[in-house]
Amino acid sequence: MIRQPEPPAADTHDAEESGGGAPHPAVPVHAVAHNLIAVDAMGGDHAPAEIVAGAVAAARQLSNHIVLTGRPGVLRPLLARQGAAPNVHIVPAEDSVAMDEGALASWRRPRSSIAVACQLVRRGQAAAVMSAGSTGAIVATAQMRLRPLPGVTRPALAVVLPTRPAPTILIDAGAIADPKPEMLVQFAQLGIAYAQTAFGITEPRVGLLTIGAEPGKGNKLARRAHELLDEDPPHSGGLPINFAGNVEGGDLLASRVDVIVTDGFTGNVALKTLEGTAGFAASQLRQALGGTRAARIGTLFQRRGLTELADRLDAETYGGAALLGLEATVVIAHGAVRARGAAAACLLAADLADGRITERIRERLGPARHFLRRP
Amino acid sequence: MIRQPEPPAADTHDAEESGGGAPHPAVPVHAVAHNLIAVDAMGGDHAPAEIVAGAVAAARQLSNHIVLTGRPGVLRPLLARQGAAPNVHIVPAEDSVAMDEGALASWRRPRSSIAVACQLVRRGQAAAVMSAGSTGAIVATAQMRLRPLPGVTRPALAVVLPTRPAPTILIDAGAIADPKPEMLVQFAQLGIAYAQTAFGITEPRVGLLTIGAEPGKGNKLARRAHELLDEDPPHSGGLPINFAGNVEGGDLLASRVDVIVTDGFTGNVALKTLEGTAGFAASQLRQALGGTRAARIGTLFQRRGLTELADRLDAETYGGAALLGLEATVVIAHGAVRARGAAAACLLAADLADGRITERIRERLGPARHFLRRP
Repeated sequence: MIRQPEPPAADTHDAEESGGGAPHPAVPVHAVAHNLIAVDAMGGDHAPAEIVAGAVAAARQLSNHIVLTGRPGVLRPLLARQGAAPNVHIVPAEDSVAMDEGALASWRRPRSSIAVACQLVRRGQAAAVMSAGSTGAIVATAQMRLRPLPGVTRPALAVVLPTRPAPTILIDAGAIADPKPEMLVQFAQLGIAYAQTAFGITEPRVGLLTIGAEPGKGNKLARRAHELLDEDPPHSGGLPINFAGNVEGGDLLASRVDVIVTDGFTGNVALKTLEGTAGFAASQLRQALGGTRAARIGTLFQRRGLTELADRLDAETYGGAALLGLEATVVIAHGAVRARGAAAACLLAADLADGRITERIRERLGPARHFLRRP
Repeated sequence: MIRQPEPPAADTHDAEESGGGAPHPAVPVHAVAHNLIAVDAMGGDHAPAEIVAGAVAAARQLSNHIVLTGRPGVLRPLLARQGAAPNVHIVPAEDSVAMDEGALASWRRPRSSIAVACQLVRRGQAAAVMSAGSTGAIVATAQMRLRPLPGVTRPALAVVLPTRPAPTILIDAGAIADPKPEMLVQFAQLGIAYAQTAFGITEPRVGLLTIGAEPGKGNKLARRAHELLDEDPPHSGGLPINFAGNVEGGDLLASRVDVIVTDGFTGNVALKTLEGTAGFAASQLRQALGGTRAARIGTLFQRRGLTELADRLDAETYGGAALLGLEATVVIAHGAVRARGAAAACLLAADLADGRITERIRERLGPARHFLRRP
């Protein structure tokens, strides 16, 4: 089975970026495979130790190969400490991007661990990338070093909200602050492909995040996006969208739809608000439960229930955000992630690569565009 | 003490709107006072019974007079049932706006209970308005029937978030979906006046809701608003703003600033997300606590702590949203409000009127504009 639908990329782009230096160290021959996941071992508050531990834990559950990019002298002893992991490899990257660096780092650091991970995709060696580095730097680096898929203007960031029975995907959660209305239709297609690939939802329902339930509600962007999403089939091309209309901030966790589309500004504010409120509720709860002796005794009876609740509100369980619409999916784990979260993000990257999400996005965005371009 | 800073309005606007019908029934002579609060008795899911009960409860704590607008035949028996309330009166309004009606109702219903409440302000008889009706209809009616204060382009909706030690004001929470950057500076001035009047904060810190902490982060609107808010004194005029820079969605409940400024689209999404997430956390908690027999027993020990938590997350305690920037403050209670919430909203309206918030806003926005208009 061919897991990576793209043909290997020509190397011109790469050679230009590596600044005419020494040739790129090759991935060990036995690992050169289309099911390879490139992991930025140097990105994250607890990198590289926790990232290496998470990658090895994920590799033990996967038939995929994992390549860690970073400084070999640092990574080798960390890897050795984890015991045997025949499907985990190292590709050197001398440089790394600090957590407080933003988008500019993508230009300044062509040999950073995240840039090298993207280069493995460009060479056709890796099918997906995972990083727990600074989101701004990862998005900028990936946009610069990876090609967008046909029909995608800009990639978007998708996050998974812990709704039940099925999770809800929020897209864009922060990649593009000022998109055009047409791009929200692309985001819908990306989100649908994600819901299908990661959660097996056959025909995901799509909602538009706005204020007020009626079609005419919202700002200019949302009102125009509503019109475009309502077209069946979409005038811009692509497969039909199962558009369920407007949703509001209160619907993010209500499981009304499978995919919630919005601009990156609103999406990021909503996501951070959601996380902040969940954290606030949890800390208030701890105070309320710890306040009196009787309440503390009561807590003993409830430990299991509370642990389950905390797990559901814990982003680590959900693997991280996915940057969709490029020639490879880039999974971005939370910067504060430990081994467990890093492993979840690696598993998500492998799931998306194995589920051929890139091919699915091509299908969703592709054929109808040509049809519509006929004179 | 003069409680209502505005001179009585000329009646031309009013006469035009009442469609040339019979003269407006006067407020009882003994109640004609500048400390009068007009209460839309017909707005809200549980109107008029719960609104009347709430208004009477508030009136017992106030020296202000309260005028209920609505159908006298319905209101009189409800009022009688509440016992003696010498400072509560009725002004007839034959029409009312249903909860599912939107902004168009402001044109269609010049004799609605909310329109009549606004007319009492235009006549200089009332200092503030309270309604639990449809937010869209109230905002549109108030915008049409009340004059904006000098320097205010459009009024904005302020809500109070339950942070500690001091509450945080979010403005605009949904009045204007597509404001100009300059209007966000006005929102900041309105929010400052609110924080000073309602919570006695001398020099409120103002934050701009955006994505990312650095000045250059956000969408075009937020980036330009950041520049304008950073000007000291503001180029557009008005008193200096104590601008603390960008805040993110996760800071809404973090008590980092006293006033959070944003456009009405983002603000409404953030507010609904916050409410939705708090509700989600509470329902998850109930499930977690009710899941096992041991957990249920534990709950008995914690009832008081949980009640306190629920109270903090309960919007009713906070009185409702305030539409700021018009010649009178309009307090908008949640549509589902019961007597307790209606009373809290009446008390907030009285607090703002007694604290002369309108005069304070004039001060904050006024003098420097003339200074800057010099050639």
